[in-house]
Amino acid sequence: MEFHFEVLKTDPTGARLGRLTTPHGVIDTPAFMPVGTQGTVKGLTQQALGELGVQVLLGNTYHLYLRPGHERIRRLGGLHRFMSWPRAILTDSGGFQVMSLSQLRKVEDKGVTFRSHLDGAIVELSPERAIEIQHLLGSDIAMQLDECLQLPASQAELRRAMQLSLAWAERSKRAFERTPGPALFAIVQGGDDLQLRAESARVVTDMGFQGYAIGGLAVGEPQQVMLRIVEAVAAALPAERPRYLMGVGTPEDLVEAVARGIDMFDCVLPTRNGRHGLAFTRFGPINLKNARHADDPRPIDEASACAAARDYSRAYLHHLVKANEMLGAILLTTINLAYYQELMADMRTAIAAGTFADFRAAARESWARGDVASS
Amino acid sequence: MEFHFEVLKTDPTGARLGRLTTPHGVIDTPAFMPVGTQGTVKGLTQQALGELGVQVLLGNTYHLYLRPGHERIRRLGGLHRFMSWPRAILTDSGGFQVMSLSQLRKVEDKGVTFRSHLDGAIVELSPERAIEIQHLLGSDIAMQLDECLQLPASQAELRRAMQLSLAWAERSKRAFERTPGPALFAIVQGGDDLQLRAESARVVTDMGFQGYAIGGLAVGEPQQVMLRIVEAVAAALPAERPRYLMGVGTPEDLVEAVARGIDMFDCVLPTRNGRHGLAFTRFGPINLKNARHADDPRPIDEASACAAARDYSRAYLHHLVKANEMLGAILLTTINLAYYQELMADMRTAIAAGTFADFRAAARESWARGDVASS
Repeated sequence: MEFHFEVLKTDPTGARLGRLTTPHGVIDTPAFMPVGTQGTVKGLTQQALGELGVQVLLGNTYHLYLRPGHERIRRLGGLHRFMSWPRAILTDSGGFQVMSLSQLRKVEDKGVTFRSHLDGAIVELSPERAIEIQHLLGSDIAMQLDECLQLPASQAELRRAMQLSLAWAERSKRAFERTPGPALFAIVQGGDDLQLRAESARVVTDMGFQGYAIGGLAVGEPQQVMLRIVEAVAAALPAERPRYLMGVGTPEDLVEAVARGIDMFDCVLPTRNGRHGLAFTRFGPINLKNARHADDPRPIDEASACAAARDYSRAYLHHLVKANEMLGAILLTTINLAYYQELMADMRTAIAAGTFADFRAAARESWARGDVASS
Repeated sequence: MEFHFEVLKTDPTGARLGRLTTPHGVIDTPAFMPVGTQGTVKGLTQQALGELGVQVLLGNTYHLYLRPGHERIRRLGGLHRFMSWPRAILTDSGGFQVMSLSQLRKVEDKGVTFRSHLDGAIVELSPERAIEIQHLLGSDIAMQLDECLQLPASQAELRRAMQLSLAWAERSKRAFERTPGPALFAIVQGGDDLQLRAESARVVTDMGFQGYAIGGLAVGEPQQVMLRIVEAVAAALPAERPRYLMGVGTPEDLVEAVARGIDMFDCVLPTRNGRHGLAFTRFGPINLKNARHADDPRPIDEASACAAARDYSRAYLHHLVKANEMLGAILLTTINLAYYQELMADMRTAIAAGTFADFRAAARESWARGDVASS
């Protein structure tokens, strides 16, 4: 099945401009993937996502497996058809949600056993099963099952989880070869330990995957620690494969990680924080819950290409958030994903022009300037 | 200010095709007004409402008065600008919500005193104050304050509330003349008592208003009782003024009321029931919560002009409703308002063609046929 990646240009900083081709279209990188946990990006229609220029969504294997069930989705023609989403989908392996959401989980070499957060049913997830589920969902990019720890964690724990993830990478690869799909990505683990990270990156690279992810970051460590790990791991990964930093992050995180050679991201921040009243903008975040917006007739960003950012006042958004109206969540989710998409597009333009360092400096300055006071 | 109404054609059944001109555009009648309680039709952007062909919204004076406050909305340029809604807005007087939502209400000749459902604050609403609030909101069509009773009610209670509503109509008219707006509608009360209804209709017609509403129906009485009252009151109202049946109803209610000479409607059914998993369709209602839809790949209506009804399967809608996802509410609200708009447009076409009786028979037959079983 069609899957290939080209690096079109590398900026002096290390930022890469690329193009990922999947059976469901091209993904221009660096790319941000909105999170569609239960087969929907909360609050947005698929049409709205298309209009925002989204080329790839993340689907959560854990949630879809429990409800409505991967076999049902398969019968209904796969996840793309089920959701009516014609573009690419990357699915995670379910491992992260097993760790964060389920009850009474038990991690063994063979896999993880857990109780569903929906009905308490006991479920087993193994590397082979995670591949099978993603295969039946019809994923364009499947992820290996891994074990992701919170930080801080002891070196012994980090080593154990990293080695388990490597064993699972190997088994995932063999399972994927039996039911091939467009692409399988490995996940580098090792916490905040540079030596473990180097070992993990070396072993998965030797195994050979269509792409490589960096997992187990943005889980409690300072930003500088995260960026040091990202920089070291990216440098240890093969240049010709896409690099995906999982679960990251703020606009600043994205720019800094792109500067260190990352090509793909997913994160719930723009959608989840939008539902909680926060707008991400060129001038930094704006908390619409704040009473100072109650009489402010200005839009979030009158120069935005996004109608939601341009056509509704801060006073109206504040009212919607205070009144707990769905439209507040819808408009702020739209505004945030539009900003994230615009940020990625601007980074691609800057890399193409060889001016990424200038772009990064200008973006930092704009965020630091902050939101202009109410007129 | 610009406001006029023309009856373009009257069908042999009594159904009327009309055109209402307001400062915010033309309203083709019979018209259905979606309810925008807190300055938003729950779950839809103003752009989506425009794409559905909605020409007029209903705004709730009670809710907007309590939050964000009518004076704030006035400072921000009025309700149209606050919401970014360029088309017409009818505002109710707040009386109905005072009766149904507030605590410790006290009705006196001077007005009503109540405690806010938001913070318990004591607020007074009089006919004059209701007009002032609607004036500051910038309403295209203001409604008089009235007292609406639940049915059944005693004849004495119905008479008292009807006479109070007439006294308030008179005071509303005088207040409106001091702060003129495009239009003020009176409300006919009298419950299920034909004699009281006739008296109420006669008195408000003698006073003279730009339009007349029928209130106090769909409050517990059988449909046949409602339609008998509608028929009698419509016949007693001046032919050259618009007639508005408040808070009604199901698709069948709308067709039957149009057949009795009603021009305008508002109702929460398509929006509220949509949020609770119900789709209104040409083949009657479909409850998407029902497990029989879990594996059904068919859309709600593949012949619909509405993308939400055409592009998403019943299985997907079922999943969204079961998973309590916002997108379920958004899509079903869209589907329902699209169906209501289509129903009104089809009625207007039938009236223009003089074939309303045929249309009514065909619509009844289609609803009775019901939803086709899963394939």
